[in-house]
Amino acid sequence: MDFLTTDPDVLDGYRFDQAGFCDAGMPRALARPANTAEVAQVLRHAYEERIPVVPQGARTGLSGGANAIDGAILLSLERMAEILEIDEVNHTATVQPGVINSVLSRAVADKGLFYPPDPGSWEISTIGGNVATNAGGLCCVKYGVTSDFVRELEVVLADGRVLRTGRRTAKGVAGYDLARLFTGSEGTLGVITEITVALRPATEKPLTAVAFFATAGAACAVVSEYVSTGRRPSLLEFMDKPTVDAVSAYRDLGFPDDVEGVLITQSDRGAAAPDDLAAFAEVARAGGATDVLVASDEAEAELLIEGRRLAGVAMERLGPRLVDDVCVPRSRLAEFVEGVAAISREHGVPVPCCGHAGDGNMHPNVVFDSEDPDSVRRGQAAFDAIMALGLRLGGTITGEHGVGMLKRDWLETELGEVGVAVHRSVKEAFDPRGILNPGKVVRGR
Amino acid sequence: MDFLTTDPDVLDGYRFDQAGFCDAGMPRALARPANTAEVAQVLRHAYEERIPVVPQGARTGLSGGANAIDGAILLSLERMAEILEIDEVNHTATVQPGVINSVLSRAVADKGLFYPPDPGSWEISTIGGNVATNAGGLCCVKYGVTSDFVRELEVVLADGRVLRTGRRTAKGVAGYDLARLFTGSEGTLGVITEITVALRPATEKPLTAVAFFATAGAACAVVSEYVSTGRRPSLLEFMDKPTVDAVSAYRDLGFPDDVEGVLITQSDRGAAAPDDLAAFAEVARAGGATDVLVASDEAEAELLIEGRRLAGVAMERLGPRLVDDVCVPRSRLAEFVEGVAAISREHGVPVPCCGHAGDGNMHPNVVFDSEDPDSVRRGQAAFDAIMALGLRLGGTITGEHGVGMLKRDWLETELGEVGVAVHRSVKEAFDPRGILNPGKVVRGR
Repeated sequence: MDFLTTDPDVLDGYRFDQAGFCDAGMPRALARPANTAEVAQVLRHAYEERIPVVPQGARTGLSGGANAIDGAILLSLERMAEILEIDEVNHTATVQPGVINSVLSRAVADKGLFYPPDPGSWEISTIGGNVATNAGGLCCVKYGVTSDFVRELEVVLADGRVLRTGRRTAKGVAGYDLARLFTGSEGTLGVITEITVALRPATEKPLTAVAFFATAGAACAVVSEYVSTGRRPSLLEFMDKPTVDAVSAYRDLGFPDDVEGVLITQSDRGAAAPDDLAAFAEVARAGGATDVLVASDEAEAELLIEGRRLAGVAMERLGPRLVDDVCVPRSRLAEFVEGVAAISREHGVPVPCCGHAGDGNMHPNVVFDSEDPDSVRRGQAAFDAIMALGLRLGGTITGEHGVGMLKRDWLETELGEVGVAVHRSVKEAFDPRGILNPGKVVRGR
Repeated sequence: MDFLTTDPDVLDGYRFDQAGFCDAGMPRALARPANTAEVAQVLRHAYEERIPVVPQGARTGLSGGANAIDGAILLSLERMAEILEIDEVNHTATVQPGVINSVLSRAVADKGLFYPPDPGSWEISTIGGNVATNAGGLCCVKYGVTSDFVRELEVVLADGRVLRTGRRTAKGVAGYDLARLFTGSEGTLGVITEITVALRPATEKPLTAVAFFATAGAACAVVSEYVSTGRRPSLLEFMDKPTVDAVSAYRDLGFPDDVEGVLITQSDRGAAAPDDLAAFAEVARAGGATDVLVASDEAEAELLIEGRRLAGVAMERLGPRLVDDVCVPRSRLAEFVEGVAAISREHGVPVPCCGHAGDGNMHPNVVFDSEDPDSVRRGQAAFDAIMALGLRLGGTITGEHGVGMLKRDWLETELGEVGVAVHRSVKEAFDPRGILNPGKVVRGR
């Protein structure tokens, strides 16, 4: 296999994804196959020899799902990066797994089409990785997540057999929905080598509005109120005060003082967008907004969304952090955000909290000092407390980042005994020798 | 089990669903449990004694999926018919499986909400049956199929354990997407006892336009053309000449003579609907429409959709028929419809063809004389030829009706050897004793 290396220096660069608090083992080799046949060759060998295989995209994941395992072959799909077809009539695109999300998104946009899933990592993450983790993003609130766009997959199974599953047609119920089962399975059931996604017609450029609130709870209440009007925002994001402070410290955007919660929304309904934003402004003011800014053109819209765009990089400057990813019913958002603030106080770690409010999907960022064992311990405790809070509010421990290594224990709590047992049965049906990303998502027996 | 009967007269009324060409066995008993605990009791007993169990909703299916099997317990969910909750803030509804689709649809409409999946059977079929078959309908072209709305399921497993899977939140990636796997599995992996579906805000009442064409091919070409403009019709249906003739024979709606293809579209975008319909009229005329009628109000809209509504009942009067359900890429629709006409001529059986053109999902109705063995044989041959044609055009053998007994052989053709093997592994993981609707969808080894 000339696409395989055992050079320790090279291997070292492929050991980690971007998760905090996750260890990585020492792999035996890195395979960078150029096609499905080479992927199958790796799997056949690994199956025969019972060697663990860790599939990898761009390693931008946040849960350790792509982290190396001792003695494993790292199977990077980065060289399989071709857009195979964009079907402008049937509105589908067929790609190899290593295609970068933004490359696909721009290629289809050039043809007047739209691939909505837009994880924060979209400029660097791959479609294969997006499918393996069922990535979300800012557009989800209106357009859905990655799995809503997956039509057909080619998957190399644990023993090297090649499965095509799903279909290119708009509808189809011939057999079990295995394409969905592979989507979000984090490389534990098979290795995805080709993907056909659905596309939509391009939308209009969005307009933006921003509302400022004196309490985080008031901002969250407005989220439910606004969605209840029947409007479907193409983006509806929340930032709490610590997030706003981090952004302001990074770049002064002229946010007002004493803001405890910010909502940012967009509408991409073209001529109807100003009406959507006016309705948002009305609901926000009725809900106690201290100020509402509504963009009247694209340039202003870009300016208003800037604060949310900068949140990630601004928070990176706060130091090491654990990004959490809890999703709760929209109606429980205020309780969640207030609960996170209480957890932050209780454990003595900053936890700026922002996220996709329209979906109830929040990203509390637990900031800690990695040099201080007590701070690390308190950070971990806060992280756990946040997931417990999410479950208590009827939510899930992960809205879009996945389980990987980071949340295996919490997954068992969420699934319960029967759920865990069924997950193990499914895992064993696809991976009887336990070689596919073992120890990720589902623990072995 | 006092909810169980062995009265042969009662059993006889539960042996068949509405599929043609499908036999049914003699069941040993009918169970009509009132709650999840009673369903679990049936399954535990069946598992222990290795008795086949056939779950049933309203038995409106068209593929024999609910037909009795010799010696089986028929497990009807019809008594579990309560709407448990409509959550107006989070836009979800939680129901027992026996709730009739139209009952739910009207209940949520009363609260300004919308449950889009609308199979032709929606006035009589159950949500449980809709989920078990992943039912489609006329709205799918814009809003998606049943599986796009399933959030959380309670499922009784083969051995009687009760699994909750999925979640009520808008997003979530904690573990495998088992809710999707159960959806469309036709009772072969578990028995669904509770369902939480997503709802949408109510839409505006639709407006309708109808276009008439001198050839079926021209009508089909306009489907792709219109969708390519980026408009998203809330309904886009096709009827060929034999369908139009059947409708006209049933009720004279004043359709013009020498029509070979009809397209019917709707837009529910309120103030923007007239603009959508004007765009449709323009594309239709450019594509050779001989006439286009555009409703200017709701009453006219109702009148124009009447023809499509009557197609089912009009075709029932033609005699026994096998309803096929092929879905092809939109761009291949003209070839498909022309191919069906050729198959009709070749085999000497009428095959009126109509369906959800916007999705490429067509329902050719093979009409035959059940008293004439040669006609039956020719009908079956035409039915098979239509599925072969669908596969040849990159389509699937079933867009929304399911596999059941009717299409087991064809499913194996569509899935291929590896696909069949993987289906069997999944089936065995969930149903190791082969008691859940055995012989449906996937054959045993």
